[in-house]
Amino acid sequence: MKYHMENTEAFLRLSSVILLVLTALLVGLDHQTKFVFFAYRKASFDEVNALLVLVYVDAVVAGYNLVRLFGKCSMSAGLVKQNPQGSSLYLAWLSLLLDQIAVYVAFGANSAAFQASVIALTGISEFQWMKLCNKYSRFCLQMGGALSCGYLACLLLIFISFITAFNLFRLYSPKKLFLLKSISG
Amino acid sequence: MKYHMENTEAFLRLSSVILLVLTALLVGLDHQTKFVFFAYRKASFDEVNALLVLVYVDAVVAGYNLVRLFGKCSMSAGLVKQNPQGSSLYLAWLSLLLDQIAVYVAFGANSAAFQASVIALTGISEFQWMKLCNKYSRFCLQMGGALSCGYLACLLLIFISFITAFNLFRLYSPKKLFLLKSISG
Repeated sequence: MKYHMENTEAFLRLSSVILLVLTALLVGLDHQTKFVFFAYRKASFDEVNALLVLVYVDAVVAGYNLVRLFGKCSMSAGLVKQNPQGSSLYLAWLSLLLDQIAVYVAFGANSAAFQASVIALTGISEFQWMKLCNKYSRFCLQMGGALSCGYLACLLLIFISFITAFNLFRLYSPKKLFLLKSISG
Repeated sequence: MKYHMENTEAFLRLSSVILLVLTALLVGLDHQTKFVFFAYRKASFDEVNALLVLVYVDAVVAGYNLVRLFGKCSMSAGLVKQNPQGSSLYLAWLSLLLDQIAVYVAFGANSAAFQASVIALTGISEFQWMKLCNKYSRFCLQMGGALSCGYLACLLLIFISFITAFNLFRLYSPKKLFLLKSISG
């Protein structure tokens, strides 16, 4: 049963890595040149800070999950520790912390990029920010696909951090605070 | 010790409610009228979808936490269930789910509003979206304060959902998956 859960976690991590890389590629390779206002103008991801940040964040989070995936596999091949104590426990807390940071950073970057895209789609007439998606439609379509992938990856990351938290917290005693179960019985 | 943790949770919930209401008020009451381009123009939160969404989201999340706070207090006054079983367990899972939804919705809305504010602050010259904060400086300053409050509230909400997860997951057996500790010993 534990084996089953570790497989699920590995599958989720692998899927999230694929989705994050796909998001970064879709955003990073997104550009469109159009003849607007008597000149060729190019829409590219690096003109908007949020999209640039999203590409970097997704690449780093994908890398982090890849490292965790390999770490998990090499641990499974060796000795499986059912009940981590001491330094292993600190490691479990650290991995939960890193998982949580990964989720929130990826989710925040995705939401920021989503907002920039919404402004590009609708424009804000009061601020005289004109809409762009009627001109750069292919660019916007690709960005929509990228953001969908990004949100799906975030959902997987949330599940992963749930599993990490579950595996850590169930070691603790339900009656006495911060006492390990093996001690309290 | 359990009493100590419940007090911490109640304090965190109360603080998050205050911060969320403060954020919603700061955003909702933020407007500035200026004489620009031969006409009086007004910058207001309801011109940007992200800010409108942020006000509603923060109000709803604050309301949810207030309900949870009163629920917690009335439960503490009555019988404190150390080891929830059956329907109480489902309730604990539901409350974790709701806590998580509250965190992610509030964090996403805050990040979206942050991105809109960054565009207002810097502008994007390639898209001919001009910067606004040099004209509406007081408006932007108030928005900055509101978003800081919002991120602080998100941090508290993350801590709260950690406590909820800890209290639920430590009921489970560390050896057998999804088996309660009272059964497995």
